[in-house]
Formats: sequence, structure tokens, C-alpha cells
Amino acid sequence: MPELITESEPELQHGGQDTEDRPDNGTPLGAGASAAPHDGHEAAAILEAVRASVNPELRSAVESLPGPMGRIGLYHFGWRNADGTAADGDSGKAIRPALVLTAAGALGGPRARGAAVRAAVAVELVHNFTLLHDDVMDRDATRRHRPTAWTVFGDADAILVGDALQALALRMLAEDPHPAAAEAAARLAGCVVELCAGQQADTALEQREPDEVTLAEVLDMAEGKTGALLGCACALGALYAGADSGAVEALDAFGREAGLAFQLIDDVIGIWGDPDRTGKPAGADLAARKKSLPVVAALTSGTPAAAELAELYRLPHEEDDPARLARIALAVERAGGRDWAQAEAADRMARALGSLARALPDPDDAGGLLALAEFVTRRSS
Amino acid sequence: MPELITESEPELQHGGQDTEDRPDNGTPLGAGASAAPHDGHEAAAILEAVRASVNPELRSAVESLPGPMGRIGLYHFGWRNADGTAADGDSGKAIRPALVLTAAGALGGPRARGAAVRAAVAVELVHNFTLLHDDVMDRDATRRHRPTAWTVFGDADAILVGDALQALALRMLAEDPHPAAAEAAARLAGCVVELCAGQQADTALEQREPDEVTLAEVLDMAEGKTGALLGCACALGALYAGADSGAVEALDAFGREAGLAFQLIDDVIGIWGDPDRTGKPAGADLAARKKSLPVVAALTSGTPAAAELAELYRLPHEEDDPARLARIALAVERAGGRDWAQAEAADRMARALGSLARALPDPDDAGGLLALAEFVTRRSS
Repeated sequence: MPELITESEPELQHGGQDTEDRPDNGTPLGAGASAAPHDGHEAAAILEAVRASVNPELRSAVESLPGPMGRIGLYHFGWRNADGTAADGDSGKAIRPALVLTAAGALGGPRARGAAVRAAVAVELVHNFTLLHDDVMDRDATRRHRPTAWTVFGDADAILVGDALQALALRMLAEDPHPAAAEAAARLAGCVVELCAGQQADTALEQREPDEVTLAEVLDMAEGKTGALLGCACALGALYAGADSGAVEALDAFGREAGLAFQLIDDVIGIWGDPDRTGKPAGADLAARKKSLPVVAALTSGTPAAAELAELYRLPHEEDDPARLARIALAVERAGGRDWAQAEAADRMARALGSLARALPDPDDAGGLLALAEFVTRRSS
Repeated sequence: MPELITESEPELQHGGQDTEDRPDNGTPLGAGASAAPHDGHEAAAILEAVRASVNPELRSAVESLPGPMGRIGLYHFGWRNADGTAADGDSGKAIRPALVLTAAGALGGPRARGAAVRAAVAVELVHNFTLLHDDVMDRDATRRHRPTAWTVFGDADAILVGDALQALALRMLAEDPHPAAAEAAARLAGCVVELCAGQQADTALEQREPDEVTLAEVLDMAEGKTGALLGCACALGALYAGADSGAVEALDAFGREAGLAFQLIDDVIGIWGDPDRTGKPAGADLAARKKSLPVVAALTSGTPAAAELAELYRLPHEEDDPARLARIALAVERAGGRDWAQAEAADRMARALGSLARALPDPDDAGGLLALAEFVTRRSS
């Protein structure tokens, strides 16, 4: 149900909005499980260096699109205004390219990191293809603080530029002479299928009755929408480092689990986040009747609060007032949705770190990826 | 302007409808320029054999889509009904896979033809991805005599299955160990960008005033929408045969020019075709105010009839009656649109055959491709 998708969704979730900009004032979730906690500075430095490596090739790929598609693509990435004039916009934090390059560097050194730039660009092109399409499907009007491409150029142009970005991504790998390029392309294309399945499940779940949705379905959907591309980014880095298949799969699992931890925390913030800190109204996800992870955990808990929550979720959201939203939030909490989500996020992050340690036992080698995982899961609650 | 796109468009045109089913009762356009004219039987036999080679792998790729996407894909291809029950539907004539396999066989023999099956499947997956998306954009309600996927499953599912088919196509080539696979994948991905640009130009042209459109623009658009993928199919066959770059480019040019000849003839039929033979109302493209090739040639002819045509094209089509449609058709004819289109089609077909002869000088080797080119351009006028 498109209108149920709100601006509050994270950019890390395929189709969501850019809440990577939330203030970094939470506690790193993974800190307790890691050898050395990271403040946000290491991740910020990695991301800045990655954008410097990746953006020239990324921009040149987008500019290569023929006709008006180039201009529309540059608008989407924040590099041009709708009228074609230059904009110093926000093309995103580049978390996925950072995972590609940091994984490649950790497993193969600076040479592998340098060789993986095209793979990093390809992953970012795929990410942006999905953003363009999801905004059309979900009728989201804002992305990175600007009107979405379909609101400016129409549905057809937004769909076509998304299609072309997917093609550019896979062409970039097909043209790359690196020995890992074909396997990386196959893996990235397979990930696109997973992303589509995740978005398909999301739109289908939003149309179902609250008590018809299982927790396994929502976890699967979140893995497809959020986890798959983070895992794929890490796996591509490992492939470009020439890592063995064990390390490739371990890094994929690391990215997937970190992505799920992120999603769980983001869903908690979508209900209980402080509006002053998150910049969105309290209970926004509840007002939109989103079947987020804590909500579905609550609904399927078999508790008396679950029955109350199901009833509240059926009330027309147009008539919500702050008191009703507070009652819904309390029902989710009393049914155990909040505790479950926080415990599950910690568990996912622990699994992510376990996978990371399998591929990179030396904490010095794993440090960059750990910093990025903590960065994406660091959220104010 | 989506509503201007009618059911009359050919399936060979990206986004068009399946008029490959029109009766084969016209005169082969290329017959005069070829050593030996072909009746439709050779092409029909090629197409049937190609479907037998390609459909199992094509269907298994579509069935591999997770969740409901597989069912939606099977519906689109005519293999399942909307409720999931088996259908012995029409998955299309398989012109593009036939061009891949026939080109591979002509240049490399049966071994090359056998090796090129995955490339043929990939091309057909790309073609069907564009059909799914174009139907959404153009709001076309019928495809291959059945309701289009978006009318049955909604826009979001049709967009997502299209996205997934593109990914499947490029994954199929990325996973193919054939030495030509990477170059073929890069070429196919580049072709997708061209297809998108063609569809983008088409939707943009339909929104402009009739006298603001140049013939060069419409020819470019037709090359992107119709010619590019036919050319790419032939080029992929050549690549899989290990042909040199001269032969690859010659076969690309052959497919492109044949595609343009087809488009020109189809546009003539869209105005002057016999409804009893074509199965669509007389003047359907005129009633839709389509800026088809003969119309734009007429509008830009600088003749008095051009001015009359421009005026007629601005009249609201809701008030059209058969007399007015006849006046519009006469204006196109008097402004030279019909003669130009027929001469241009013959010229394009001659160029196609010239390119074919460069790559395959022996008419025996070229026979299959020639038969296919004549098949696609054989239309009742």
C-alpha cells in the first residue's frame, strides 16, 4: 500500500528514505562484542575517502546516459538541479561502496582496494536503481531532502533511468578485465533478484491484515530489502581480493546480519525515537500502520497486548491523535515487541561480528568493516 | 502521453503490441534485392526450432524467480493463467532468439549455435523486461491477446518482475563460461541503455506538438526502440561464433536496418492497412495522433498538405469520425508520407542486405538470416 510507506524509512532499506543523516548520538551496538569500540570518526573518514575514490567514476557513468536520462540521473544523485544547473547535493553516504572497498582492502591490501573501485561503483548504481523504482512504487515524494525523480520528471522517466542504471552497473562489471568480475557480476545480478523479491514482499505485506503476517515473513523481507545488498557489497570486495569462497560467504553473512541489525534498530526508532533527535514525529511508523519488525513481533506474541494491538492497528489512521499513538506504542511494548527487537538486533550484530572474525581473525584487519557496521547501526533511541 | 500508445504497435517495437501475428500475405520487401526470395515457411521452421531450443531454459529462468515473481513472470510469458493454472499461451514468436542462434550458426556452425542458447535466452529475457515496463508506462492493457501483467498484478509487481528479468538476463551471461560471454553481456547491457533511451524519446515525443518533431528524432527513436535489440541479437550470435569485430558490427547493422524497415512498414500499415487483414481499425494510429514515421515525414515536408495535416492533428481525437480519419490519411499521403516511408523501408532493407553480405558473402550461409528479415518485414499493406 504505497501511502503506508513514509519518509521515515532508512536509506539502507531498499526503497526507504535517508535517515543515515540522523544524529550519531546513540551507543554503538556492537561495541560490547568487539575488541575495540569505534567512535564515528573512523567510519566518517572511511566514507569520505570512499566517496573521493568512487564518485568520479560513478558520476561519469551517470553522465554517459544518452539524452535526458543523463540529466535525470544527475538530478537523482544530487549533482544537478531539476533545471540542469549544478548542485552540490547529497549523493548518499556511500555505505555500500565503502563496504566493497574496505572488504577488498582488508582481505587483499591497497592493490585489491584499488581494483575494486568499479565493483563499488556498480553496487552504488544498483542501489540507486532500486531507490528510483521504489520511490515510484511507494509514491515517496522526498529523498535526500529533495523531491524524488518521479515527482519532477514523471513515472516513466524515473522507471527508465532506474532500468538504465541497472544496465550500467552490470555493463561496468562485464567490461572489467579483473578475474573476479564475472563472478561479481553474477552475484550482483542475483542480489538484484533478491532486492526485487524483498520489495515485492514489502508491498504485498502492507496490503495484508496485521494478524496475517508472520515474523519469519517480515524478517525475510528485511533481509531481501536491506541485508542482501550490504552482504553482496562485502562479498564483492572479498571476490576482488581473491579471497576463497569461505571468506566470501562469511563477508556476505557479515553484511546481511549487520543490515538486519540496522533494520531492527531503525524500526525501534520509528516507534520510540525522540522526535527532537530523529527529526520525524513520534510514532510515525505506527501512524502509517507499518508492519515493522517490533510491531509484527508484538502482534504474533500471543499476549493479551497483541490482541489489543491488532484491534488498534485496524482503526483508521486518519483519526489518530497523540493519545492513540501512545496507546499503540504501549501495546507494542507490553506485547514484548521492543525488547524482542533490541535483543534480536544485538544477536544479529553478534552474528555479524562472528562472521567477520571468521574471515578476518586479526582485529586490525577487521577494524574498518567493524567501524562501518557500527556506524550503520549507531542510532539514537 | 501514455494514452496515445495504442494496441496497434508491433511487438518488435519495444513497448508495442504483438502484431507479429498479422497475416503473412504481403510481398517480401527484401526479395527483389536478394539472390533467392524466401517464402514464410523457412522462417516459420527456424522460429519453431528456436523456440524448442530456447524455451526450456527461458522458462526455467523465469520459474527461478522467488516468491510470487515467478508466477507473475510465467503469466507474462503466457505459460500460466493469472490464477497460476497452466496455460498453453503465446510466449511470442522468438524472433530475437532466432536471430542470435541463426547468426551464430551461420558464422560458426552447429557448435556455435548450440553454445549461443544462453545468449538467446538472455536477449529474450531483456525483450520481455522492456515489454513489462513499457506496458506500465504506456498503460497498454493488452499484450499477446491477454491482459497485461500490470492490469492483473498491479504496477509495482510488473515493474519488479521486469527488473528481475533484466537481472536474470545479465546473470545468465555472467555465469556463462563461453569466451564471448563477457563481451556479449557488455553489449547487451549497452543495448538496454539504448532501449531505455528509445522509450524515453518516444514518451517525450508524444507529448510535443506535431510540428515540433523532426524526422531525425523519430528515426533515432525507432532505431533505439526497435532496431537496437534486433541488431544486438545478431551481434551476440556473431560473438558466440567467434567472429571478428567487422562481422559483429556488420551483423549488428543488418539487424538494426531490418528493424527500421519493419518499423516503417508497420507504420504504413497503422495508417493504410486493411482492417480485415490487420485486425485493427483503419487509421488507428491517426486516431491516436501517433507521431509515426510517415506522419512526421509528411509534417516536415514543407508542402501545403503538411500544414493541413498539422491542423488536423491538433483537433481533438475524441471527435474523430471516419471522414476525418480519411482526410488525415489523405493529407499524410499528399504530403508524401506514404511514398517516403515505402522508399525508406526499401532503402533500409537494401542496406540490411548489404551488411549481411559483408559478413556472409555466400547466400547459402546468409539464407536463414535473410528469411528472418523477410519474415519480420512481410506485412499486408
